Amino acid sequence: MSAPARGSLLVIGGSEDREDDMQILERFVQLCGGADRRIVVLTTASRVPEKMWAIYDAAFGGMGVARRSEVRVTSRLEANDASLADDVAQADGIFITGGDQKRLLALIGGTLLDQALHAALARGACIAGTSAGASAMSAHMLADGKAELHPEKGAVSLGAGLGFMQRVAIDQHFSQRQRLARLLTVVAQNPYLLGVGIDEDTALLIEAGGGIEILGAGAVTMIDGRHMVSNVADIRQRAVPEMVDVRLHLLPAGSRYGAQGDPATPAALADFLNIVTDIA
Amino acid sequence: MSAPARGSLLVIGGSEDREDDMQILERFVQLCGGADRRIVVLTTASRVPEKMWAIYDAAFGGMGVARRSEVRVTSRLEANDASLADDVAQADGIFITGGDQKRLLALIGGTLLDQALHAALARGACIAGTSAGASAMSAHMLADGKAELHPEKGAVSLGAGLGFMQRVAIDQHFSQRQRLARLLTVVAQNPYLLGVGIDEDTALLIEAGGGIEILGAGAVTMIDGRHMVSNVADIRQRAVPEMVDVRLHLLPAGSRYGAQGDPATPAALADFLNIVTDIA
Repeated sequence: MSAPARGSLLVIGGSEDREDDMQILERFVQLCGGADRRIVVLTTASRVPEKMWAIYDAAFGGMGVARRSEVRVTSRLEANDASLADDVAQADGIFITGGDQKRLLALIGGTLLDQALHAALARGACIAGTSAGASAMSAHMLADGKAELHPEKGAVSLGAGLGFMQRVAIDQHFSQRQRLARLLTVVAQNPYLLGVGIDEDTALLIEAGGGIEILGAGAVTMIDGRHMVSNVADIRQRAVPEMVDVRLHLLPAGSRYGAQGDPATPAALADFLNIVTDIA
Repeated sequence: MSAPARGSLLVIGGSEDREDDMQILERFVQLCGGADRRIVVLTTASRVPEKMWAIYDAAFGGMGVARRSEVRVTSRLEANDASLADDVAQADGIFITGGDQKRLLALIGGTLLDQALHAALARGACIAGTSAGASAMSAHMLADGKAELHPEKGAVSLGAGLGFMQRVAIDQHFSQRQRLARLLTVVAQNPYLLGVGIDEDTALLIEAGGGIEILGAGAVTMIDGRHMVSNVADIRQRAVPEMVDVRLHLLPAGSRYGAQGDPATPAALADFLNIVTDIA
């Protein structure tokens, strides 16, 4: 459907610093090409878009981004407005705020605005999403669910996301909200998907050339269930599945792989990253 | 040092039910040979041994165990009492209570009582340990430390445990106290050790013949870092290590492997279990 991306994705685990060092937001502006470029903030995931816009208006304004604007879409009719979509497709950076990823997709999934996001990425824009905006980035979107102590069959539901990444499920506020059991639940039932859990004030940057970098204060946890042996198909709802041979990778801020000059990627991680970085 | 075990180990993650279904304690009594056998309760880990004894006195009494007694050792002098040690060596079951595993080992490590526990296991007794009593069972004992959100270099300290298991580090209250980051810390710095995290009211039973079974209400999480690629040797204290290709197994209550009639053990788990079940 989409051309291969020439842009980059910045997948942020929520609660990124917006007032002090703003490391992640500063990097976003750089990835857009600098403070003289045009950045739009998509507040649709939130029920209080004006509050979201006020936060990012101040943050990007403080960095000298003059051409910043909100895209406040609150209906599918607006999301199918051709001139708005064209405006978004031509932006240098698009920042998708937090809120509720189900709300975001219910309003923009399949619309001209959805297509415009892909067109912008293909053209070379940077698309950032935080919290709900991060979860929304994959084709299979972690939509809902709690699994507090252990993985639980049936505890988590998926939805159709924006589809910048194809074989990935993203969770956010990951260590802070102790969401490993929830992500293991996704992988137990959907071993086709690689689980990516992103901490608060932390981001996974996927560069156009296939490099990745972890930014910010925390870490990214990656769960690979492709080798897993499990009884999940046979147990009752809400039971705890047996999961044998789940592969886990923990990449703290500062980790970089896949671009020229980066450390050699360990074999067990290389295949995982090939899938994660296949963005469009 | 010790003969191969003819007995069994019951490694309990703390807070096992002591009043209602008592599933784990009932199983312990069965493993000892039944209610007519002789059971001793080692309360040394606790600073309130009389309270510990009251709990297990009531529980085992309620199951009809007439020959039950406390071993209340509060000094190394007592732990080197030959007649006490001989009494323990001849018991059919030994139950090691919670408290502080460092206290337990400081008082009995290397004493005649320590030797007596190994002799009892070799003879065929069942040795159960809960909470601190569980952590104490391995040669390398998780002694102290917090790592709340992520693994942290230097956050955890090990001590010398009772050594029934050789290449294992045990943690307890595992899911309830969100201790995965702590166990990952142990494995990051000590990839020779396999991490075993046991939930509350849950037990890992290691049978004499090498079979294992998970009992109780929760699950056992197993962490294998032998294939891991990590920068832990090079980072500063308290930094978060990168950990690539950690293998994780989650076995919920009801899982059984390794004995006749059990399901075939998945290859990735078989080698892990060979190490965990090599008790003496």
